[in-house]
Amino acid sequence: MADSHPFGLHRVLEPQGVMPQAAWKLDNRMECGVNELLIDVERLNIDSASFRQIYEEVGKNEQAIAAKMKEIVAERGKHHNPVTGSGGMLIGRVREIGSMHPARQELSVGDRIATLVSLTLTPLALEEILQIDVANAQVTIRGQAILFATGLYAKMPDDIEEQLALALFDVCGAPAQTARLVQPGQTVVVLGAGGKSGLTVLAAARRSVRDGIVVAMDYGQLACERIQALGKADIVLDVSAQDAVACLASLEQAWNQRFGQAFSGADVVINCVNVPGTEMASILPCKDGGTVYFFSMATSFTAAALGAEGIGKDIQMMIGNGYCKNHADYALNLLRAEPVLQQIFRQKFAVHSH
Amino acid sequence: MADSHPFGLHRVLEPQGVMPQAAWKLDNRMECGVNELLIDVERLNIDSASFRQIYEEVGKNEQAIAAKMKEIVAERGKHHNPVTGSGGMLIGRVREIGSMHPARQELSVGDRIATLVSLTLTPLALEEILQIDVANAQVTIRGQAILFATGLYAKMPDDIEEQLALALFDVCGAPAQTARLVQPGQTVVVLGAGGKSGLTVLAAARRSVRDGIVVAMDYGQLACERIQALGKADIVLDVSAQDAVACLASLEQAWNQRFGQAFSGADVVINCVNVPGTEMASILPCKDGGTVYFFSMATSFTAAALGAEGIGKDIQMMIGNGYCKNHADYALNLLRAEPVLQQIFRQKFAVHSH
Repeated sequence: MADSHPFGLHRVLEPQGVMPQAAWKLDNRMECGVNELLIDVERLNIDSASFRQIYEEVGKNEQAIAAKMKEIVAERGKHHNPVTGSGGMLIGRVREIGSMHPARQELSVGDRIATLVSLTLTPLALEEILQIDVANAQVTIRGQAILFATGLYAKMPDDIEEQLALALFDVCGAPAQTARLVQPGQTVVVLGAGGKSGLTVLAAARRSVRDGIVVAMDYGQLACERIQALGKADIVLDVSAQDAVACLASLEQAWNQRFGQAFSGADVVINCVNVPGTEMASILPCKDGGTVYFFSMATSFTAAALGAEGIGKDIQMMIGNGYCKNHADYALNLLRAEPVLQQIFRQKFAVHSH
Repeated sequence: MADSHPFGLHRVLEPQGVMPQAAWKLDNRMECGVNELLIDVERLNIDSASFRQIYEEVGKNEQAIAAKMKEIVAERGKHHNPVTGSGGMLIGRVREIGSMHPARQELSVGDRIATLVSLTLTPLALEEILQIDVANAQVTIRGQAILFATGLYAKMPDDIEEQLALALFDVCGAPAQTARLVQPGQTVVVLGAGGKSGLTVLAAARRSVRDGIVVAMDYGQLACERIQALGKADIVLDVSAQDAVACLASLEQAWNQRFGQAFSGADVVINCVNVPGTEMASILPCKDGGTVYFFSMATSFTAAALGAEGIGKDIQMMIGNGYCKNHADYALNLLRAEPVLQQIFRQKFAVHSH
């Protein structure tokens, strides 16, 4: 592949002329182009909305999940879930570096890296699925992948084990964006706070608000126990984010109980829920002039846009960008600085089931 | 209906406990609750993505479109397109004001108003479809609708005719948000600039950037002629926003030709396109640290989120909020101050076909 485009346009098979992420099908022949990176893949970290959709479709059965994953890659040349539209990321070792690749000075063949771009635009050849960790949406495989010149990656750290780093990198945009967005003294509400991205967001929000207020919501005892264990939230609520009305009511009640006054709205609401239908639960508690940041890949654009308008809320709503500068470093440093977060991640999200 | 909730929760039939916009079906019995407004509807202004979907499904035939619209309302109690998820707005006369409605002092029975909340959450009873203006997605009907206490509306102005105001109100969030977002000296790229919202955004952007640069893109000669006639853009490009690669290439070429230097990215990109698949065309020209504002209801949340990450773009992406304070007044004043915009709107978007 001599004609190697920085965005990977040369890998797009259909439809012609679109970007690789928009393509239905990518060319997944594993020949390294002049500005491509060829990777021996060890493990895939599937986006949680995508993985949930797969096992809800085929059942929580390793063989059925493996068959479905192979079907997706065979059809599309990438692990791009056609229902959720989402992907995930991968870990592997550099096998070959194109002669024109921008990271030629930084990387060596054999380096262990994680890709920080979505699997939805990563050409992937899936030779064999070796093991599926259903609880963590992590899949050990034999296969290869291609990273384009603009494709983000991170070298695996020495002091944090592979499984842990991979779980963290998958969500590393969220805490970094939170740190950038949240200001001291603010009130922040985090939905889906007991999940992988939610916990990192909680920790980042606590650092940024300082003496402000952090409210954490999640659904179910286990998630709320993780939030309590992390110890970053002033109020923890066990309520379904799909029930917007109940969310607001329980927040108002808990706020009144805790602070002896009426809840007057959050400056920032961060949605990390991995099920659909949680837009209104994010919009309702946000005060006029505030910001709702949607990290959930299950967010519906129209539900958010029309939802805010429908109740006359003058708020900013942001589409979670999985990338901001130095996001992987920020997340690694957060994990290093927060031993409890590291412990929860290790126990819950990074357990290698043998 | 004595038990009248400000968000309209009492009108939700299924599923139970959700907000009216999220509901599959609303109670559209036309009895005015204590904090509701009952409206005699004269005209519906269907969201352009929704209207396009309808006529692409059933054909550009008035009877077929009418049948489909009746089917949607019969099934859902509101004109909420189940495919696009979008609605539109309506114009009519106040028929009854609930005894607890917040606008009891401002409104009188008989006032002509436009609703500024989406039809996706407006209980609607459609008695008869009298006329369909296919070109403008405006539908004259006999019917009634309900507005909840939090539902936004605007009184129709005396100096701007009904058709024109209705067309304007449908998009009035876009120019108001643009005015708030764009700063003097910036470079702004507007996609879908020749459409209804796009032209208002162009005019608002020009006022805000002052000596900055405004680039307008749209697809097709007619749209580009409207942009040229408005005279607010420094560069006008006729290119499909579904072809992200071609958009960037044509912008780079035109910029070089006009200014004799390389295009270094836009501070703000505003997407007003009413077809899907235009996320990457919005993301590619945005510079690191810049903002993409998606007003298009055809925007895919995941395509935007993964698209930016996929090419390592550190940008803010915002979900267009159809409401911000005084948006209707801003839009009316913009139209009053811009005679050419008013003329184009009158000719193109507000023609009453008898």
